[in-house]
Amino acid sequence: MPQYQAKVFVTLKPSILDPQGRTVERALSHLDHTNVSGVRVGKLIELTLTGERPEVEAQLAGITRDVLSNPIMEDARWELEEA
Amino acid sequence: MPQYQAKVFVTLKPSILDPQGRTVERALSHLDHTNVSGVRVGKLIELTLTGERPEVEAQLAGITRDVLSNPIMEDARWELEEA
Repeated sequence: MPQYQAKVFVTLKPSILDPQGRTVERALSHLDHTNVSGVRVGKLIELTLTGERPEVEAQLAGITRDVLSNPIMEDARWELEEA
Repeated sequence: MPQYQAKVFVTLKPSILDPQGRTVERALSHLDHTNVSGVRVGKLIELTLTGERPEVEAQLAGITRDVLSNPIMEDARWELEEA
């Protein structure tokens, strides 16, 4: 069975406040990185899936939507490549 | 001054245990996603930088190494595109 390496990128929706990102931004500013703005902290989830590509793609889309992200507050996208 | 949109990807080094990833993997397995393995949870940090490209690239490399990641335990890479 082919194996696929997947990356899922989960980010807070733009309208959702990101206190962690704000804290990083303030820390950078204190370190004289005053030209940095809009810091947002999201998640990168890596996983390996075994199976045929069409099934794996459908499964990954479902996992991303139902398990790995909260569609109310987060945007998610994924990439798949053969391992 | 040009603006750049940066993405920094921070992942645990392969030799470092990832309890969060293990927990996600077990949850997926309980949901009948038994063909999923090697789940690792990392960070995706997005930021905007203002300045000329060579300076911004050097600055981002420094921030990634010194602030956004722990080089002992984590690998980090970054992407930059004009906003």
